[in-house]
Amino acid sequence: MNTPSALFVDLYELTMAQLYYECGMTGEAVFELTVRELPDNWDYLIAAGLERALDFLESLRFEEDDLEYLLSLPQFDQRFIDRLRTLRFTGDVWAPPEGTVVYPDEPLIQVVAPLPEAQIVETAMINQIAYPTLVASKAARAVDAAAGKPVIEFGGRRAHGSEAAIEASRAAYIAGFEATSSVEAGRRYGIPTTGTMAHSFVLASDSEADAFDAFATRYPATTLLVDTYETADGVANAIRTAKRHGHGSVGAIRIDSGDLLKESWQARIKLDTAGMSDVRIIVSGGLDEQRIAELVGSNAPIDIFACGTSIVAPPDAATLDSAYKMVEYQGSAVAKRSPGKPSIGHRKQVWRLADHDLITRVDDRPPDAEPVLQHVMSSGQRRPAGLDSLARIRVRAAGPRGPRHVEIDPSLLT
Amino acid sequence: MNTPSALFVDLYELTMAQLYYECGMTGEAVFELTVRELPDNWDYLIAAGLERALDFLESLRFEEDDLEYLLSLPQFDQRFIDRLRTLRFTGDVWAPPEGTVVYPDEPLIQVVAPLPEAQIVETAMINQIAYPTLVASKAARAVDAAAGKPVIEFGGRRAHGSEAAIEASRAAYIAGFEATSSVEAGRRYGIPTTGTMAHSFVLASDSEADAFDAFATRYPATTLLVDTYETADGVANAIRTAKRHGHGSVGAIRIDSGDLLKESWQARIKLDTAGMSDVRIIVSGGLDEQRIAELVGSNAPIDIFACGTSIVAPPDAATLDSAYKMVEYQGSAVAKRSPGKPSIGHRKQVWRLADHDLITRVDDRPPDAEPVLQHVMSSGQRRPAGLDSLARIRVRAAGPRGPRHVEIDPSLLT
Repeated sequence: MNTPSALFVDLYELTMAQLYYECGMTGEAVFELTVRELPDNWDYLIAAGLERALDFLESLRFEEDDLEYLLSLPQFDQRFIDRLRTLRFTGDVWAPPEGTVVYPDEPLIQVVAPLPEAQIVETAMINQIAYPTLVASKAARAVDAAAGKPVIEFGGRRAHGSEAAIEASRAAYIAGFEATSSVEAGRRYGIPTTGTMAHSFVLASDSEADAFDAFATRYPATTLLVDTYETADGVANAIRTAKRHGHGSVGAIRIDSGDLLKESWQARIKLDTAGMSDVRIIVSGGLDEQRIAELVGSNAPIDIFACGTSIVAPPDAATLDSAYKMVEYQGSAVAKRSPGKPSIGHRKQVWRLADHDLITRVDDRPPDAEPVLQHVMSSGQRRPAGLDSLARIRVRAAGPRGPRHVEIDPSLLT
Repeated sequence: MNTPSALFVDLYELTMAQLYYECGMTGEAVFELTVRELPDNWDYLIAAGLERALDFLESLRFEEDDLEYLLSLPQFDQRFIDRLRTLRFTGDVWAPPEGTVVYPDEPLIQVVAPLPEAQIVETAMINQIAYPTLVASKAARAVDAAAGKPVIEFGGRRAHGSEAAIEASRAAYIAGFEATSSVEAGRRYGIPTTGTMAHSFVLASDSEADAFDAFATRYPATTLLVDTYETADGVANAIRTAKRHGHGSVGAIRIDSGDLLKESWQARIKLDTAGMSDVRIIVSGGLDEQRIAELVGSNAPIDIFACGTSIVAPPDAATLDSAYKMVEYQGSAVAKRSPGKPSIGHRKQVWRLADHDLITRVDDRPPDAEPVLQHVMSSGQRRPAGLDSLARIRVRAAGPRGPRHVEIDPSLLT
């Protein structure tokens, strides 16, 4: 998966850019990407997606075939095309490092660059950051709900394309998921991969028992999917398989349908009665953080939760309500006043204080405060602060997360 | 955007495949991708995504670096890796051509291939087809609601990554959208591109009037965004700009916030009073098919609707409830019986009859019926039926669409 091409831009960004150059409007602009409001019942966000956003900025190039296409459109002239040919992103970028807990109105990225450059990257910045942040935040809710039990991600097929799938696996891992079923995400990001078996394997075998035997023969500590026909029979078959192949041959069973509380208890009792209290129970099938919390709250004997759809395409939050808005131009604050969608001018910094966050003008550092936005790119070059390992990002995301009061300094509203 | 790599697969598909080869389970399998249930209030789906699904099948190759990664995992041995090295998709595929109106239980794709091949492509088939079908179907609802007025797509930034954005533009165009703001979608798929201006252009200019002047000077029949400050003032500025630059200089105004019914009427009256009845009104801002229907029903003087979020990441349908299930193995019907998620065995065909659809076993052709599923790939090679132009797909999608009774032949349930 490469970064998007330079043509991953909305047409108006280019028509505006052409005019910016023609009118000499190339002064320094500050744009900030913020989430205006959290989805219902959400308390926080986990910042994610910065790495790919910086990749995009660092590698931004209009190639000859891009330029040829643009020249075929009625809007653009040769002079602009020639300018695009040598255009590079030369700006500076501040952002909370990936894995940081963030709140509405706190910039997810702050781009400081000549106006045409900052404008042209609008679509890419929103697109590359909003979705990973959405997934990491939703996944964190599932991890929180599981209260220490492992959660794994099986959502690739439900994501909006393969790029979304792989970025979702990464974002869920950042938020504390233990593993993914996606082999490509495993390869690209070094995320542990996991998997069980599908109903098709059972269906293609002469019997469920045969299918289980094949898996137990071939794979150590295997996981058997027990609900292809009748879950009770499936559990009984799994127990027989485990007995035949010896202790440790069956590591877990998976239940993918039905009343998971009831089914997991019935399975647990059967397994324990058979002396297999070390065989774990994995459940899947439309799980989200609410369902997980219910199962945990009901003391369901479930060892691992597998989530798909709810993480990669959250039904309660198909998108984040985000905006990439200019807040300063040539050193002066600007803000739109569109009814219901006003923006807050001034280049900002966010300060994480003991019991609340404070958003101020960039230079108004309160005493003893640490800035949330880090300087991650300088003159188009990535800085060390923008180069965290996934392991470190994951640790950061595991830090205190929950509701927080965010105070907006009154000087921002003038 | 390339097709996904061969590693775009869930781990269990590969562990199952290794066992299929070891156990000699390489007989012909039939898998079908179907949607189990429509989102609330939806009447139909528009099939989309087939082209990329067939691209994936046709180009499926495990490259050396894919194989090296797989060999690093504990599950796979050299014999399987060597087999994957030469694996090609050799199966046959049937599907409704893109743009076909389809209903639940009707296969969106039917893969007939040796079991390991049909299994390995599971994730890719669901992932590549479900999202475009979701978007085309949602977009069709917006087009239906607009009752003949043009609808355009501005959603790239809201999509789940850049691949999703570009495929969403294509799917919306299939469903009858007139244009997209995405330059990459324009280049790749030949979709007309369109755009207006952003609030940032107005904010970076000395005044709104200056911003409008710049656009009207540079771009013929330009569109002016009038709601950066006060919409009423913006409309007045647009009128002054149009007068200064002459008839036709301003093609349209765009309103992106506020009460769109009220604002559009106030703008229309001002424009008409100024003798500018040919200046069109474009609205945007959280529009979905319901809001469009309300505006159309209220006789709002709106000429063009621009949709983003609601199309590329539908809040009422984050995903389609789809499944890729084995329905036959070696000529025998199979079906899982998982509670609440049973599948229907037998390889199927869908027949479009005068007043309803009929799903039968593949060879049970009713008299005078045309099959919906076409033979689009033969022994891994695309057939002409799988190679429609986007223009033709779009015409197909414009055909009769609405609710339809779907009858499942009783022979399928035995």
